[in-house]
Amino acid sequence: MATISEIRRPVEAEWRQFERYQHDCLQSDNPLQQEVLNYIAQRSGKQLRPLLVLLAAKLCNPVTDKTFRTAVALEMLHNASLVHDDVVDSSDTRRGAPAVHIRWSNKVAVLAGDYMLAKVIGLVAEMRNIRILEIVSQLGRSLSSGELAQLHVGQSMWIDEEHYNRVIELKTARLFQACAEAGAESAGCTQRQRTALREYGRLLGLCFQIKDDIFDYSDLEEIGKPTMSDLRDGKVTLPLIIALQRAPESEAAAIRAMSEHLDEADPRTLQEIKSFVLRFHGDEYAVQRMLEYKKQATEALSVFRDSPIREALIQLLDYAINRVQ
Amino acid sequence: MATISEIRRPVEAEWRQFERYQHDCLQSDNPLQQEVLNYIAQRSGKQLRPLLVLLAAKLCNPVTDKTFRTAVALEMLHNASLVHDDVVDSSDTRRGAPAVHIRWSNKVAVLAGDYMLAKVIGLVAEMRNIRILEIVSQLGRSLSSGELAQLHVGQSMWIDEEHYNRVIELKTARLFQACAEAGAESAGCTQRQRTALREYGRLLGLCFQIKDDIFDYSDLEEIGKPTMSDLRDGKVTLPLIIALQRAPESEAAAIRAMSEHLDEADPRTLQEIKSFVLRFHGDEYAVQRMLEYKKQATEALSVFRDSPIREALIQLLDYAINRVQ
Repeated sequence: MATISEIRRPVEAEWRQFERYQHDCLQSDNPLQQEVLNYIAQRSGKQLRPLLVLLAAKLCNPVTDKTFRTAVALEMLHNASLVHDDVVDSSDTRRGAPAVHIRWSNKVAVLAGDYMLAKVIGLVAEMRNIRILEIVSQLGRSLSSGELAQLHVGQSMWIDEEHYNRVIELKTARLFQACAEAGAESAGCTQRQRTALREYGRLLGLCFQIKDDIFDYSDLEEIGKPTMSDLRDGKVTLPLIIALQRAPESEAAAIRAMSEHLDEADPRTLQEIKSFVLRFHGDEYAVQRMLEYKKQATEALSVFRDSPIREALIQLLDYAINRVQ
Repeated sequence: MATISEIRRPVEAEWRQFERYQHDCLQSDNPLQQEVLNYIAQRSGKQLRPLLVLLAAKLCNPVTDKTFRTAVALEMLHNASLVHDDVVDSSDTRRGAPAVHIRWSNKVAVLAGDYMLAKVIGLVAEMRNIRILEIVSQLGRSLSSGELAQLHVGQSMWIDEEHYNRVIELKTARLFQACAEAGAESAGCTQRQRTALREYGRLLGLCFQIKDDIFDYSDLEEIGKPTMSDLRDGKVTLPLIIALQRAPESEAAAIRAMSEHLDEADPRTLQEIKSFVLRFHGDEYAVQRMLEYKKQATEALSVFRDSPIREALIQLLDYAINRVQ
């Protein structure tokens, strides 16, 4: 599997320009806002979304100023939504450090997120490109709808695969889709290229989320994320949904009965649910889904001729599926 | 003083169109989101901001579809920011009913606010008017910065008039300013008209906020808002700032010493602070500020010839200053 640095190689010069531009955008007059922005910037993670913007743009044409702006805006939208999600989900840590609402307060987290969202609109507005603006505004609605859809059904052992798909479509796939689509648009792509990259981005996002959800049922040593953490938060994801569906009703009922107070569940209960998922191959089913999505995503890229950029996008799919954190 | 219905009269037909348009915009696929939108719509208050949009537009030219869209977008932005502010300030009621975060949860309030913000961008994006978009995006930054500036200094008896002015400028004046400016823009105004209405809106907003802050020091019987409620939340506003500045240092120090744990203060302490403000005429000073702003706002309107619409805008200033709730 290629590393992120290797995948980034064909857009290395552009990446440095993006980083400089991003740094300039993260300045604020408000000292508290500035502290929060710095805090987030110092824990910026792998920044896969701006990478996708740059790759999608350059696959079509040389990148433009609009490309950098789009990359910064979408990364900021992503971060704003994480800051709000951590308040909503009461998650204490993010990328190995205290979440913003823990480091400061819920108040600061809500307002800093709002400030970042407003900044995103400003960045996009200044581009004067209505199509990119529409992509971003549609994305904003999808992200909050996705979280709301998850809240609506709540932490229920009764959600089915269809509902799961709907949530991850809104919560994760749309963001990757927007990165690829707006990236392409920022470089002045054709309609055919735009449609292809949009679909690629969507499928990459689905793989990314499913992989994240499989981590709960992997072995502790391998991965960066604490195992069973989603389950402890009451999040029922694809591997468990499938196992519940495949198991005889009596067994499924016993597992469902454990689902109350999962946040206080002892390790034995969590381990029991994990064994249940593995016994009915819920994790394997999820892997199969990713592989199908990867195949479709690769096909979507077939409208482009072979190039190091196209290769990098295929490596990014592999990365999403095979990463260990 | 003219009532809101009277002020609305010269745009009565347009108001009905706005209400129909707003109703259509408040539809969502997500059942929970729909419930929240309905809940807010049923408690919509006086809707002064869309009224200002319509009046400002029609003062320049006949209103357009863009005017209705602007009115809906800015009212929704206002409501989204109230929903988030109530989470941030832990305010339990809004317009006499439980706040969204109390009726549902903080989670729902954060996400429903985000959804509404995204919807605002969508509404504005579809207008394809870059100037309105810039007004709205700048406004979004001002609103969150204003709340953050308030948080940053916090609940301090040491804030001065300058800081107070900066906060109300960002928190309230910019919204009224944006309504008047974007309203004018939506009807295709001249640059001169736009500048005049922008200034009028700003000053109207300042009057509106100062009046709100004076309520704390009025008599309970007269007004709709529970008296001393800001003070109990630790919010130090203009009347108290001025009294603290005018009083001999020993007296001011005694009042400042009471400022710890105001949320648990007994009625006698609150009453003492109120008497202090009245004794040093902090409330009268605030009234003087409003009257100066009203004068400036009326002057700003002098670029327009006399008309029922211009008259309504002047009545709106009187309403902001003299209302009892």
